[in-house]
Amino acid sequence: MDQERLLRELSEFLRIPSVSTLPAHNQDCRAAAEWVAAELRRLGCRDVEFLGSDTHPVVSGKGPDVPGAPTLIIYGHYDVQPPDPLAEWTNPPFEPTIRDGKIYGRGAADDKGQVFCLLKAIAASPRPPINFRFLIEGEEEYGSKVLFDLLKREPQRVRADAVLVADMSYVAPAWPAVYTTLRGLCYAEITVRTSKTDLHSGEYGGAAPNAHEELGRLLTRLKGEDGKINIPGFYAPVKRPSKAELAAWKKLPFTEKDFLQKRVQGKALVGLKKYSVLERLWALPTFEIHGILGGFTGEGAKTVIPAEATAKVSMRLVPNQKLATVERQLAAAVQRLAPKYVTA
Amino acid sequence: MDQERLLRELSEFLRIPSVSTLPAHNQDCRAAAEWVAAELRRLGCRDVEFLGSDTHPVVSGKGPDVPGAPTLIIYGHYDVQPPDPLAEWTNPPFEPTIRDGKIYGRGAADDKGQVFCLLKAIAASPRPPINFRFLIEGEEEYGSKVLFDLLKREPQRVRADAVLVADMSYVAPAWPAVYTTLRGLCYAEITVRTSKTDLHSGEYGGAAPNAHEELGRLLTRLKGEDGKINIPGFYAPVKRPSKAELAAWKKLPFTEKDFLQKRVQGKALVGLKKYSVLERLWALPTFEIHGILGGFTGEGAKTVIPAEATAKVSMRLVPNQKLATVERQLAAAVQRLAPKYVTA
Repeated sequence: MDQERLLRELSEFLRIPSVSTLPAHNQDCRAAAEWVAAELRRLGCRDVEFLGSDTHPVVSGKGPDVPGAPTLIIYGHYDVQPPDPLAEWTNPPFEPTIRDGKIYGRGAADDKGQVFCLLKAIAASPRPPINFRFLIEGEEEYGSKVLFDLLKREPQRVRADAVLVADMSYVAPAWPAVYTTLRGLCYAEITVRTSKTDLHSGEYGGAAPNAHEELGRLLTRLKGEDGKINIPGFYAPVKRPSKAELAAWKKLPFTEKDFLQKRVQGKALVGLKKYSVLERLWALPTFEIHGILGGFTGEGAKTVIPAEATAKVSMRLVPNQKLATVERQLAAAVQRLAPKYVTA
Repeated sequence: MDQERLLRELSEFLRIPSVSTLPAHNQDCRAAAEWVAAELRRLGCRDVEFLGSDTHPVVSGKGPDVPGAPTLIIYGHYDVQPPDPLAEWTNPPFEPTIRDGKIYGRGAADDKGQVFCLLKAIAASPRPPINFRFLIEGEEEYGSKVLFDLLKREPQRVRADAVLVADMSYVAPAWPAVYTTLRGLCYAEITVRTSKTDLHSGEYGGAAPNAHEELGRLLTRLKGEDGKINIPGFYAPVKRPSKAELAAWKKLPFTEKDFLQKRVQGKALVGLKKYSVLERLWALPTFEIHGILGGFTGEGAKTVIPAEATAKVSMRLVPNQKLATVERQLAAAVQRLAPKYVTA
């Protein structure tokens, strides 16, 4: 295959504005799915199917049977994020443009580019002794509901020896990375209740407990200023990476300064200071607050003392941390750290 | 005036379903305003006007001129809260019913009953040497926008020697109260910013700061677990009530236990333990959180690390606390208590 043809085909894929979150682009999402399906057929796949949705189907395909060979699932997605704000783009988002030897366009790096490379790499190579399975979805940027529903209904779709997810980051420019594992997730809602109904701050302020205040206090107890998660037993199963891994990470073109300035774009990094930033990001569990509900959050002013407040939180889990155990540990810690007069 | 006629007239007023928050009741609100206007005219008021809204007007009226006499504004409202949940009512909300010598109906105690009593008391008494002004509004349960707009436009409407607001609580059953002052209000939004954009908790969790976490920490520093508000200078101008006042409060039929069980309906009272609950409620300033914005609060799970979080807070202020000073003190305290890496 010559480069020109590959670029032409990739550009064709990138030009489809398959924005999954915007219903106006439903037909574009379908078109991107058709594009993927045609490529799978060209690869010699059997059973190329559109599953779970007419407009945002999961494109499923099976490569030629190789008896006795291991099975590899290739996962990717053909949908993209909305391109706003348009004024920030150097080239129009759906008109892929090459500058300095790089192709720019919505989806080029997430995830059409990767899907394209994998399909073309398989096509270009001598037939590898692998049973390929493809699951290329169209709602990754929109919560993957179609895919999750499909896997709940047909779990055998992911029965395999390995899964290749080509939807990750480079460690640094020109430094591609193989992610061998990702942290797992424990998502939870913590609700604090302080009285039967919301109260008026003019009549009750100063003596009635405030659910937001108690929740804030509980959350700052659950995770201290030093970044330590105060859940008994939480860190017990956590193993440090091997010396070889830690040494390899040190050689990566990663600096905390660059990470802070170019990626986080904040004023400082936080977390457990005695571990390197990469270890904090890749090998340690986390506790994050995502949103807080309750009380009054509309326009303008309302002086209610909220009777109930809920925090959406999640913990990233590392190998050996079991979800069920962590859930139990979190519930116990919340009980222990919440004031006696609070229902949590 | 005989009791029967008074009861009949009050019932007529209570029967009008003047629910200000529900557009379906706009005509009922207007009808309640007309009812008030007719009463004012019957009292001999001049210049009875409907101001600021066709459906929820402020009913304004001036009593007969008494040269040299002081001016008293009587404030009240003819609108009521929605009556839901209907199943909780013993009698239908807009069919006033007498039980055990008490009249039950939506608005009987807030605020039609009080407006009615004042109008009838004036009508029944020998003409008092007072220049009465009436401002009876129709959006008290809906934010009083019409009234506030009117007062901004025509501040002379409240030029008076005193204002009588008959819209407060009894201290205990059969124990009416005269409120001489109410605490003032400083409403503020505190925003914490930790990075330029929201970040993914899988990629950044453990090293990037979390705006909700930092805001929670800031808020728990601003108001400690003991209920003390840690804003330098905040309490300096606060004067304790006189000995006579404190002694009088002690004689009130008020118990902390009843207040907790029947009013707060929670498990414990909070706040500055060395002051009585009534002093906390009536004579000390407060700091309350009303709602927290930012991050993800929709249905389901999203694992964003919020870059920005905002708390809606208010402080109730007591005599000698100046709003401008408190605003400055709060801003300075936020600057001092927020971590250096946070924009607050």
